[in-house]
This record gives sequence, C-alpha cells and structure tokens, in this order.
Amino acid sequence: MRVPQYSGLGPTKPGEKPRVVVLGTGWAGCRLMKGLDTDIYDVVCVSPRNHMVFTPLLASTCVGTLEFRSVAEPIGRIQPAISREPGSYFFLSNCVGLDPDKHLVQCETVTDGAEPLKPWKFEISYDKLVIALGAKPTTFGIQGVEEHAIFLREVYHAQEIRRKLLLNLMLSDVPGVSEEEKSRLLHCVVVGGGPTGVEFSGELSDFIQRDVRQRYSHVKNYIHVTLIEANEILSSFDDRLRHYATKQLTKSGVRLVRGIVKDVKAQKIILNDGTEVPYGLLVWSTGVGPSPLVNSLPLAKAPGGRVGVDEWLRVPSVQDVYSIGDCSGFVESTGKPTLPALAQVAERQGKYLANLLNKIGKAGGGRANGAKEYKYEDPFVYKHLGSMATLGRYKALVDLRQSKEGKGLALAGFTSWFIWRSAYLTRVLSWRNRFYVAINWATTFVFGRDITRI
Amino acid sequence: MRVPQYSGLGPTKPGEKPRVVVLGTGWAGCRLMKGLDTDIYDVVCVSPRNHMVFTPLLASTCVGTLEFRSVAEPIGRIQPAISREPGSYFFLSNCVGLDPDKHLVQCETVTDGAEPLKPWKFEISYDKLVIALGAKPTTFGIQGVEEHAIFLREVYHAQEIRRKLLLNLMLSDVPGVSEEEKSRLLHCVVVGGGPTGVEFSGELSDFIQRDVRQRYSHVKNYIHVTLIEANEILSSFDDRLRHYATKQLTKSGVRLVRGIVKDVKAQKIILNDGTEVPYGLLVWSTGVGPSPLVNSLPLAKAPGGRVGVDEWLRVPSVQDVYSIGDCSGFVESTGKPTLPALAQVAERQGKYLANLLNKIGKAGGGRANGAKEYKYEDPFVYKHLGSMATLGRYKALVDLRQSKEGKGLALAGFTSWFIWRSAYLTRVLSWRNRFYVAINWATTFVFGRDITRI
Repeated sequence: MRVPQYSGLGPTKPGEKPRVVVLGTGWAGCRLMKGLDTDIYDVVCVSPRNHMVFTPLLASTCVGTLEFRSVAEPIGRIQPAISREPGSYFFLSNCVGLDPDKHLVQCETVTDGAEPLKPWKFEISYDKLVIALGAKPTTFGIQGVEEHAIFLREVYHAQEIRRKLLLNLMLSDVPGVSEEEKSRLLHCVVVGGGPTGVEFSGELSDFIQRDVRQRYSHVKNYIHVTLIEANEILSSFDDRLRHYATKQLTKSGVRLVRGIVKDVKAQKIILNDGTEVPYGLLVWSTGVGPSPLVNSLPLAKAPGGRVGVDEWLRVPSVQDVYSIGDCSGFVESTGKPTLPALAQVAERQGKYLANLLNKIGKAGGGRANGAKEYKYEDPFVYKHLGSMATLGRYKALVDLRQSKEGKGLALAGFTSWFIWRSAYLTRVLSWRNRFYVAINWATTFVFGRDITRI
Repeated sequence: MRVPQYSGLGPTKPGEKPRVVVLGTGWAGCRLMKGLDTDIYDVVCVSPRNHMVFTPLLASTCVGTLEFRSVAEPIGRIQPAISREPGSYFFLSNCVGLDPDKHLVQCETVTDGAEPLKPWKFEISYDKLVIALGAKPTTFGIQGVEEHAIFLREVYHAQEIRRKLLLNLMLSDVPGVSEEEKSRLLHCVVVGGGPTGVEFSGELSDFIQRDVRQRYSHVKNYIHVTLIEANEILSSFDDRLRHYATKQLTKSGVRLVRGIVKDVKAQKIILNDGTEVPYGLLVWSTGVGPSPLVNSLPLAKAPGGRVGVDEWLRVPSVQDVYSIGDCSGFVESTGKPTLPALAQVAERQGKYLANLLNKIGKAGGGRANGAKEYKYEDPFVYKHLGSMATLGRYKALVDLRQSKEGKGLALAGFTSWFIWRSAYLTRVLSWRNRFYVAINWATTFVFGRDITRI
C-alpha cells in the first residue's frame, strides 16, 4: 500500500525531537496533547475530526441552548505547537493499522466523499504511540438502530437531531397530516437512562415548555418526550437523587418507561413485551463498547474487549505503546477494575500520561525503545470526584461521593444546577469557548432558544 | 393531486381575518411580513427555509468571522404572529403552482429526503398573494457549474464552502500529496467581481493572512485566491473607488484575472482563451436570473423574465396578486427600468407593499376581489441610498451617489469600513442577532477566527 514518494513520516533522526503519535481527539487524547512538553516532543495527531467535543454540553446544542461551535474546541487551540512546529502535525485521517514491532501506524485520509480525490494511505513512524480512539455506541445487536436512531456523541449528531426535530415540528403544522401522524412526528423517544439520556430528555422538555409552546402554538399539544430504560435511570447515583430526578422529569412532562427494545423500525420501536412505540425522533444513548479498529489491533486486551494496559497505562508486551480513555482498560493481572467510560476518567488519564511521557523524555528515554531502562514510579490511580447530571429548568443532580456505597455530599435542585453550570464553564478548555458558553446561556435566558433550521 | 381530507386552507370566511399568502422568505417577503398589520390580516408564509438570510454578511460566515446563526433570522422572530395567531402559519414547503382565477396556490412539502415520509401536496386559498420567490444564480449555460461550483446565497452554501476550505487545508498537509496537488487544493477561485465576489475574496485573503499563516503554517505558501471577472470588478461603483478596490485586493494577495469561463471540470476551469485554471474551491457569484417556477407562472412578465408588476407592485390582469424583490420587475408599459437585484430594493418594496396592504385592509378591501374599488395613490418609487462593499482587513467602499453618473459622497478605507460595519449592525433585524454579530466581531478581533470543522 506504500506510495513510492511521500510515503509518510519516517523514523525521527538524532537531530530531531522524538515523535509522539496520538490517535484520537477525545477527552483523553486532547488532555494528553495539551499537557505534552513540546520542547521535548513533536506531536502528531491522527483523527477524523479536527476538534474535541465538549460532550457534557452536547445535549444542550440540540435544542439551541448552546451554539454547536461553543462546545467544539479545535486541536490547534488545545495544543498550538501542532500548527506551528515544523515537526508537529494534525492529519485528518483514520488509523487503519498498527505494526508495534516496526513502530509504525498506517493511516488513511478522510475525504468525506464530497471531494473528487480518493482517500490515500500513508505511514507514520512513532517514538511513542498513544491510543486514545474512544469507544462506539452499543446497539446490543438490535436491528435498525444504526439506520433509524441518532446517537449523541459528535457535533454532527447534535446537528442531525436539531434538524430533524425542527423539520418534524414544521411538517406537523402543514395541512394534510392526520392527527395520528402529527403525534408520531412529534414523539421524541430517548433510549437509555444514563446521564446523557436524562440530560437530553431534560433539555428537550425544557425546550418544549419554554419555546415550543410559544413558537409552535398550533402543535404544542402533540409534542411529547418518552425516556425508555431497561433498569433504573441514573443507576450510578444516590437513591435520593434518583427519586428526585424521576420526580422532576415526570413533572416536566417526560414519560418514563421501563422496557427493553427488541426491534427498531423506520417509524416505530417494538419493545420486548410487544408494545409498539411510534416515534418521529429517536435518540439512542445506551452506553459504549469497543470500536472495530480496537478489536482488530494486535495488542493485549482487557475485559470487555478494550486495549489492555498496566498501572502506568502501557500496553504490555510491546514497547512505547500507551492507551487511555474509553478504549482502554486495566489487564486482569493488575487486579484493578475497568474504569467507567467517563470524560472524567479520560481527562485524568490524559493528564497523567502527559506527565509520565514528559518525565521519560526529560530522562532521555523519548526515542523508540529508549525507555526500556526507565524506572516507572507512581502508577495511575483514579479518584472519582463525583457525578453530575442536569435535568433542565434550572435543576441538576450533583453526587460528590467517591463511590456508590460511599458517604459524601449529594445535592439536587437549583444549587446543584448552579454548581453544574459553573463547573462546566471552567472546564471548557479555551477562554473563547468559556466566553461563548456564558453568552449563549445568557441569550437563551433573555431571548429564548434559537429555532433557525440551517 | 388533492388529498380528500386536510386538503389545505380553504377560502376565508366572513368571521375570519382575510389571509395574505407570502411565497418566499428573502429580504422582500420578510420585510413585508414584518410590516403587515396582523390585526387586519392572517399571514401564511410558504418557503423551503424557516429563516431569512442576512445576505450581506454571508461571506463573513464562510471563514468563521461570523457564526452561521448570527446571520439567519427565523420567521417567527420577524413576525411573531405566525407562531401565535390561530390563522397564521409557516409552511416548510415549495410553491408548485398558482391558479389566479380561483385564488389558489398549490404547495408541496420539503422533507429533505431524510424523512421516511414522502412529500405531499396541498392547496391554500388566498385573499392577497405576494410572490417574493427571489432569483436563482445564473450559470450562462456553462457546463459543470451546478455540479462543481458553490454559490453563495444560502447558509448551507456558506457551510459547504467552509467545510471544503478546511478539508482542503487539512488534506494538503497529509503526507502523500504532490506539490502540484497541494497548490491545486489550496487554490480558491471566485468567479464574478460584483460586491459578493469581492467581499468573499476580501474575507478569504484576510483569513489567509491573519489566520491560515499562523494555524496552518506548513501549507501557508500554497494557498492563493483568484478572482475572475469578464469585465471590471464592482462595475456599479465610482471609478476612483474601483481603482482603490483593485489596489487593496491585489495588495492583500488576491489575483485579479480578466477572463470568461468556458467550461468547468471537477478540478479545473477552462477560460475562453484556453487557459486552464486548477482549483480546490470554486465559488460562483455572477448574478441572478429568474427561477424555473417564476418562468412557469401564468402571469405577465417583465423584461428579463421576471414577474411583471405595475407602479403599485400589482401583477396586471389578475386580481390580488403582488410581486416584490428579485423575482419581479416593472412591465414595459410603466416605462420604468428594471431595478437591480439588491437587498436594498427588495427591502424597500417589502416595506412599501406592507403599508399598501395595510391601507387596503383598513379600507375594507382585504378580501379576495375586495380591492377592485380601492383608489391606488402613491406608487412605489425607488431611491438608491448608496452601495457598500467590504474588502477585508478593515477596508471598505461606500458609494453614496444616487446613480452611477450622479454626484455625492464616495468613501474608501477605514472610515467606510467602520460605516459599513455599523450600518450592517443596525440593519440586522433582531436584537439577538445584532448582539451576536457584535460579539462575533469582537471575538474574531481578539481570538482570531474559529477553524473547527463541524
């Protein structure tokens, strides 16, 4: 597959900085790139998107509370060296293969289909490789999910949800639609009662109560939100918080349904007990699993099919390969449990690994096979700082316990909504986006949400 | 094609308000709807988009100076009655036919292809009909324009330009691209030297000089802008201003080429003299002509194929049909010249017609065939208030002469850039968007342009 000329980036030479290749631009990869010392390393990032998505705020963009761009941070703003340093690059490409013995990754460009160019392959030699490819949504093998449901993980998902919601609102207003069809078009079904599903349901019912009733007054009585969950919603939260969430969601008009989805058709889903649920918009948010690429990598695996790592986030039995974020998990021999697929975990791992690689680089172990003698000290330890989930309408949950059984602060209501908003504001990476998120919230408060369908 | 039930909106009844049906949501239609007295009329708007595009600022959104949503104004914000009054509606549909004798329009829903629903047809009876369908870009029958070039009239055009520009910037950085291919990918060609073409070229070269050089430093020497025009650029402007524009554009790196395009291929255009110009991005902005629907309407026509109107913007020989904006022109018998296809003209006509219809309504002539006795007084008179065009980098032209031969103020440089920006700020319709445009400009000034490709 090698192109004779320009076959990619060859091994680094003595005069050059060692090269860290980062696969992925999620929480883990971006936090790592932000922390890498670019006086020591050149950074090469490979990803099909040139930005990080601030996932906890993505649900808010679907209904126009926030702008899409306020929750997306371009890589060049996270690590400026990538656009400035002669040896650092961002490649809009997918990783398609890995040869750990030769210290090589194979990549293929992303061309979107729009371009008359065909995608082409190239190779990159790495001194250190960080696999931060994330995970993909699970469908439990249910037919029709991929075709008919929309996930909520990327900005284009949020855009699709928004376009569909506004299209359905407008279509249901046009003469010639039966009452039954109107109800179907305006029935928004969310499958999965984790934080994302609950947050999206909350935002959606808030949008309906605050904005749809005013701006689509002809159809306001037809729009409904149903949240389907096989077990309990927000199962990782405190009992008291869960009851509060259930009460609040019900009060704001979200119908909570206990059920297991069996089949997904174009205009209805079928539950295990045979119930048919017609829908106009279906959002799927039932957790994540390993991507096909992660499955295919010739590396040790952790329980659940994730890339296996040891206490220092190294992939065992190969040199210079690390893995962080949702795609990685501790190998069984560490005796450690698999960490939840949370932004919090990914961010902490990215930060830890950046420090570790900086230390290795300073100790002269930055080159390929150069860290064999390095004495690894403090392993990665995850300390859970608490969970948050918003419920819309100035209500949220904050659970500051270390674990589900532990003791600690558990808050619900306006106070925690305020904490939640402030916490997110300061966690949005750049000042530009902190500013835009604040402005977006303020204008939504004053003018209501934007309903332009562009 | 009639659906037996819900076949649309029938003729208004004595207890109801008379119904004005507006086709189109451009400058003309939106200004009209804003001005209509909704105590007198119910307003029904039919358009394939639920917002107005603030076209003079559209060029700025392609390079991230402004947000897409800052230049789009939803209809419900322009005329709140449409979302509140029981007899007023917005239908996301295209008009597909007109029966002026029966006072009926035929419409078909827009479903985007995404929806499993098939588009359906319905009819609306009108008391007054306003045709404000705008125009479509002219291609002069040149092959390949529709397939390969991007126009700059809708928000989705600006989004497409932005996505392509950022894709090309990133692709040209990936190993495996030849020098020649890199130059092609990063060659942005603009065809048409009117205000839109010049403004876009100016914004683009400003983006290249201020942002690309910093953020895509590997490829900064490959990116170029060429503006192709068959005659002179900005031909409606003062000579002195034209020379100033030419000098400024050249200084900021835009290559001006005098030429006529003969053929457009996927990766190159061919000029009349045989020159081949390879391109990565092609923007087509050579003026507008009537749309196929306008051509097909069973109405009197003005020179150039537009819908013919008299001095009161009425379509002659039918009752209760008016036409405004780019789709309309004076019939020959009025002795008046066709007005240029400018936002300014459309906006003035919309305002005039709203007042006229309000007067007719107050005089009791609002119903179908009810204005036969109405005494039409002041005809529509267009007074040109001057032209403006920005050149990027805090430079603009302002030509305040009444006509090309007239005398008056002609400004170029920073002062007129400032006037230009202020003029646009106060013309953006809602306070929300005025606010956002100001914020966007401020953040672009402070942080540079956003380069997220979402």
